[in-house]
Amino acid sequence: MENKFAERACLVNSSETREILKVTERPEVISFAGGLPAPELFPVEALKVACNVVLNEEGAASLQYSTTEGYGPLREAICQRMKAIGITSAINNVLITSGSQQAIDLTGRLFINEGDTIICESPTYLAAINAFKSYNANFVEVAMDNDGMIMEELERKLQEHPRAKFIYTIPDFQNPTGRTLTLQRRKRMIELANQYDVLIVEDNPYGAIRFAGEGIPPVKHFDTENRVIYMSTFSKIFTPGMRIGWICADQSFIDKYVAFKQTADLHTDSFAQRITAKYMELYDLEEHIKKIKAVYKARCTKMLKCIKEFFPENLSYSKPEGGLFIWVELPEGVDSKHIFTECLKNNVACVPGVPFFPNGTQKNTLRLNYSNMPEDQIIEGMKRMGDVLHRELIKRQYVCN
Amino acid sequence: MENKFAERACLVNSSETREILKVTERPEVISFAGGLPAPELFPVEALKVACNVVLNEEGAASLQYSTTEGYGPLREAICQRMKAIGITSAINNVLITSGSQQAIDLTGRLFINEGDTIICESPTYLAAINAFKSYNANFVEVAMDNDGMIMEELERKLQEHPRAKFIYTIPDFQNPTGRTLTLQRRKRMIELANQYDVLIVEDNPYGAIRFAGEGIPPVKHFDTENRVIYMSTFSKIFTPGMRIGWICADQSFIDKYVAFKQTADLHTDSFAQRITAKYMELYDLEEHIKKIKAVYKARCTKMLKCIKEFFPENLSYSKPEGGLFIWVELPEGVDSKHIFTECLKNNVACVPGVPFFPNGTQKNTLRLNYSNMPEDQIIEGMKRMGDVLHRELIKRQYVCN
Repeated sequence: MENKFAERACLVNSSETREILKVTERPEVISFAGGLPAPELFPVEALKVACNVVLNEEGAASLQYSTTEGYGPLREAICQRMKAIGITSAINNVLITSGSQQAIDLTGRLFINEGDTIICESPTYLAAINAFKSYNANFVEVAMDNDGMIMEELERKLQEHPRAKFIYTIPDFQNPTGRTLTLQRRKRMIELANQYDVLIVEDNPYGAIRFAGEGIPPVKHFDTENRVIYMSTFSKIFTPGMRIGWICADQSFIDKYVAFKQTADLHTDSFAQRITAKYMELYDLEEHIKKIKAVYKARCTKMLKCIKEFFPENLSYSKPEGGLFIWVELPEGVDSKHIFTECLKNNVACVPGVPFFPNGTQKNTLRLNYSNMPEDQIIEGMKRMGDVLHRELIKRQYVCN
Repeated sequence: MENKFAERACLVNSSETREILKVTERPEVISFAGGLPAPELFPVEALKVACNVVLNEEGAASLQYSTTEGYGPLREAICQRMKAIGITSAINNVLITSGSQQAIDLTGRLFINEGDTIICESPTYLAAINAFKSYNANFVEVAMDNDGMIMEELERKLQEHPRAKFIYTIPDFQNPTGRTLTLQRRKRMIELANQYDVLIVEDNPYGAIRFAGEGIPPVKHFDTENRVIYMSTFSKIFTPGMRIGWICADQSFIDKYVAFKQTADLHTDSFAQRITAKYMELYDLEEHIKKIKAVYKARCTKMLKCIKEFFPENLSYSKPEGGLFIWVELPEGVDSKHIFTECLKNNVACVPGVPFFPNGTQKNTLRLNYSNMPEDQIIEGMKRMGDVLHRELIKRQYVCN
């Protein structure tokens, strides 16, 4: 048989990180590699109640085909949640998606022509890179510091790429770095987007998981020209398995998103949408999020303490105020893939940073996840990782011993 | 703001039929327009049990992120179901999708280059047309008779389009015609596909809903060169709201489908997958399907009787042995859109046939759905529709009165 694949088939491959994650699933491995929420916090008992109430009260209607836009009461509840963080929206601005991954993918489908330029943080979220790459986008990376994307760098890139299609940003507790864009920079990003007539795609899955510092309104709050496409998800504050995300944008955009979503999967699981809405009606989601934040704060604090205690001194790392990740920069010249392999021999796992750079630079970085491991495991895993790092950095004479 | 949409954005629009369906949702309308299963047959009580058992036994694991390929025991159960109809497969040949609509969409994404030719039945499933069109496919329609796609016509089209990418077929109780491809033609379709080196995409959502006549193995059963991509769904035999479909194909294809599905939505709702698997473990899905078939058979029989009784004589229609639809061909020159409008004034709805023809021919056709209306409503609705047809056909002097 002749090769039948479309040309775009060569643009995707089973994500490298997912393959890494498979290796790290051995039970003896302490894994900081994934990006999983803590499952022991999922509200299993409350979900049992919500399922029963939905099936008792709404019965067959909750199991039938439904509208592409999503379940009205859920969209309404999302508008209310967004209002609390400074986003004004009506139900027609909200489309329910099958996780925020679908929001990302539909964004690529709706906006990216072959060869279009996407501006993003360097590094950025791997699965967004893969989705946008599948539409044949070019990536222009903007350097970050501890305050997020550097605005002078962004302006320079906008000047160099006047036809850039959008800025893709994860302003809160970014994946993979855990860094947060400051208030000033958010305002400046909007000014630059207006000035250079470029869209902003604000991917904000972690914003609600702030466990330290002051809250900052989302970039969309400062949007003066309806050019920010905001997306978020229940994956980090409720459960990820049910795949409930959403897009909030100008209605002219939402109308087109709806048309593409119709062809993509007709609609998102209507039973899961109703369970999610019913849970919010019967229970206090904010109280639940408080519990998540308390646990993640303790785990993050413990991991940061372990870095100080067990890791060599000549590396830098982010100090997140929320979210799920810490980013480690090793001395230049250290290949984190090698570190990963050595760590795995010692039954501890992390993700090497390379795939988070769309153009594949910077090999000396690591992403650590703290949300998915209890504190005693964090201590043990970080010890193991510290041993590997000391040994490997000594070999390379980066550490005097 | 400058227009930011990608070129492909102009290839999709909110499906015409979905817009029609919105109009028909007024409570006073008797609608034969949709393609909805009968909700009163959804196993609501059994689902309550399945939800509780899943949450009790599997707890948080059922709510966590999971693999793109899908839940192992569900894929295993699907292999068993397919074995019973003559498809030999292993778990690695099966990918769980978010409804079979996603299977269709991913197929477009994986195989269609701009301008590629897709060969299909004339008419064919509207949402497949929309999905493939969004990848800029050209459609070559093959005429049907009551035995499905005509093989001599298919061969002629394959000769005319030697670079055709795939044959898209719905062999069982086709949407919109309700027609079934005969055994002989299935074998011939495989021979032709092998001879002309073209893939076959077998979309088979209705095959299990056969309520009359002899069962025929799926086209994939006759596949000798792994060139049939089979897709099906739980939407018509269980519930559509949870969006559980699947693709069964050669593993080299599945590997690429998995990579695209990762970028599309990471994975299908894992809770819904486990509920579906648990339902099949605890209950007898075949017994449930028997109930569906009995009801649909009665409704189909009633509708066919009403056509004979209330409709003018000079039209033809299909006599399905399963599935959800009857196809009506009005005398040439009658515009079914006009009939639709007149019907709606009389509070009865159908779908005009035009959008089911990818190249927009044949205006004198209608699709009627019988699965979603009780028999008394079928009688009343068909009377109303019969009145309209008599009146409109008299106006055009197609009926002597």
